[in-house]
Amino acid sequence: MSDLLLQTRDARGVVTLTLNDAPRFNALGSAMLQALQDALDEIAQDASVRVVVLAANGKAFCAGHNLKDMAAQPQLAYYQTLFAQCSRMMLSIAKLPVPVIARVHGMATAAGCQLVAQCDLAVASTQASFATSGINYGLFCATPSVPLVRNVPFKQAMEMLLTGDFIDAATAQAQGLVNRAVAPEALDIHVEQLVQSIVQKPATAVRMGKALLYRQREMGLEAAYVLAGETMACNMMDADAQEGAQAFAQKRSPSWRS
Amino acid sequence: MSDLLLQTRDARGVVTLTLNDAPRFNALGSAMLQALQDALDEIAQDASVRVVVLAANGKAFCAGHNLKDMAAQPQLAYYQTLFAQCSRMMLSIAKLPVPVIARVHGMATAAGCQLVAQCDLAVASTQASFATSGINYGLFCATPSVPLVRNVPFKQAMEMLLTGDFIDAATAQAQGLVNRAVAPEALDIHVEQLVQSIVQKPATAVRMGKALLYRQREMGLEAAYVLAGETMACNMMDADAQEGAQAFAQKRSPSWRS
Amino acid sequence: MSDLLLQTRDARGVVTLTLNDAPRFNALGSAMLQALQDALDEIAQDASVRVVVLAANGKAFCAGHNLKDMAAQPQLAYYQTLFAQCSRMMLSIAKLPVPVIARVHGMATAAGCQLVAQCDLAVASTQASFATSGINYGLFCATPSVPLVRNVPFKQAMEMLLTGDFIDAATAQAQGLVNRAVAPEALDIHVEQLVQSIVQKPATAVRMGKALLYRQREMGLEAAYVLAGETMACNMMDADAQEGAQAFAQKRSPSWRS
Repeated sequence: MSDLLLQTRDARGVVTLTLNDAPRFNALGSAMLQALQDALDEIAQDASVRVVVLAANGKAFCAGHNLKDMAAQPQLAYYQTLFAQCSRMMLSIAKLPVPVIARVHGMATAAGCQLVAQCDLAVASTQASFATSGINYGLFCATPSVPLVRNVPFKQAMEMLLTGDFIDAATAQAQGLVNRAVAPEALDIHVEQLVQSIVQKPATAVRMGKALLYRQREMGLEAAYVLAGETMACNMMDADAQEGAQAFAQKRSPSWRS
Repeated sequence: MSDLLLQTRDARGVVTLTLNDAPRFNALGSAMLQALQDALDEIAQDASVRVVVLAANGKAFCAGHNLKDMAAQPQLAYYQTLFAQCSRMMLSIAKLPVPVIARVHGMATAAGCQLVAQCDLAVASTQASFATSGINYGLFCATPSVPLVRNVPFKQAMEMLLTGDFIDAATAQAQGLVNRAVAPEALDIHVEQLVQSIVQKPATAVRMGKALLYRQREMGLEAAYVLAGETMACNMMDADAQEGAQAFAQKRSPSWRS
Repeated sequence: MSDLLLQTRDARGVVTLTLNDAPRFNALGSAMLQALQDALDEIAQDASVRVVVLAANGKAFCAGHNLKDMAAQPQLAYYQTLFAQCSRMMLSIAKLPVPVIARVHGMATAAGCQLVAQCDLAVASTQASFATSGINYGLFCATPSVPLVRNVPFKQAMEMLLTGDFIDAATAQAQGLVNRAVAPEALDIHVEQLVQSIVQKPATAVRMGKALLYRQREMGLEAAYVLAGETMACNMMDADAQEGAQAFAQKRSPSWRS
């Protein structure tokens, strides 16, 4: 494991990935992207992981790409490789079988803001702020715009992308970029509430559900219903769903296998 | 007509369908789904119906599928048939030529929450609450996620689906799940305001409009404009639209044929 | 230039188009649509334009189509031509290489509300109000529903379209139809803030970014990332993006070519 990214894991199967490059505001350079990709690839294969928390050390959550590195290598092929690497990592979050919760304690800019948008859930401290600030350096936040416009109303996304201006955590919450905006001292409590809620659910239902939500939202209404109906019938055949239904019928608490 | 579903109709062509299985919290078992399907199929053929209100008796609005029934029949084919039956009914709401307004006085959970999300409009009492709670029993609310993610911002939908937690009516309104959250004693007044507004409009425009909105929102921008332009030209040739334009030009109130 | 549409331009490349038919509440008749189309076509070819402000004279912002004209020519072919002309103009706003900001000082109804929805950004005075009011005259606002449902949550869009009711500027802001709702005397200050922010950015990044955002939001997540990654690599090869990255690396302010 790279020093750039710390990884802890508790007995419940909760993996915490912590961006650990405070001097560079946790910039997503090639090495950091690779560390994230390796961690996500490993988690994707590990059936015992239940949920991932994405956190960061230092003052900022994540400052996005490393402009210094990018200034040093002005080649199209380099940029294509870099953005493809970054996009692959971002897509790996969406494709990860388990939910990913962003724990945003500070500034999240450019691809750092994208990281928050791409996570399944996000809890922000009121000290956090968000901007797609590439445009301030002549670089439109094109890849960040992908999850941004799928989380935030269109005109608000356009404003962030064209102005590069910061929004605060309360605005991010109101616009759908994060689930909650909470006092800094309550940040861990709120992340833990979500974690606790998810690990109490059967793993199969959570995994089938996350994958289904991403697939069906890109479909037309009728096709989405067909896929969702099939998925739900399949989910019902799982031993835990059977136990859940039995427990409901017998008015007792369910006892999960997973 | 089944006793599970009451149907009334007033002189204006307003049909009220009332879920009437209070002891089972208006669960959407096969018989209830069939009663709803029959009612919707009949309404779809009846040109004199102008708007449908979907209400419910008892403490809850609708508790979703009947887990007890589902526990008793652990067969894939049974679940496939059940969810297909449910999805067909839900799609019939979207395809119904006239608007459907949910009158939500109490709890709406799982497929009950889906019912609210799938209606065209919804008014909720502040005593109502909403959850996609299947996950608490090991069953991800897959089919409810279809209209939910088309009404509510992505991360909020994800949170409801993964946690199974309730949101109150004010939150549901802020997130787009319902149009209004009002005091319980004002619920009927607000539903009637919407009903009254819709029945005052010419039937043809309302019918063409609802169908167009569902179709065009699944298209790309250019194709949507082509379809919408054709629909609008066609709508203008209707006698009532001609009367509306004449009335406007002559500064008088229009007198509708329908 | 038609008297129906005033055009000014400042040294920064900011073009202000002002609807100037106060007696007809700036109705979008054929001549007004043609004037807008001509202006947009010209701007689309002019590399020195940086941003467009769409404003209006008189009490209303824009009352939409001219129902009087439409009443006088009850022919399908006429309506088809009119709505196609209008849709082409609206699409030209989305396709315009530079951002378009609506400055909404008063009522915006029917295709006037559509105009606001179709602009990239919008600032509204608290004296402004918004309605898709065609339904009051028997004509469902089909083409206005195209940008409306892409800006505003589904049930709120449905309510506006079926009831024809007005929403105020604060509600429009909360629902995503406009970026800001401000006191009438602050309207120009807020429009200028957005203008100023955009003209300070390199032109290439703004142009690539706007086009990308409209294209990628109609794609699936993976295809969107491919296009966005390619666009961003391409953007990085632009001299201004190189200067931006160098300036960042050297901790100085960038000096733009464009």
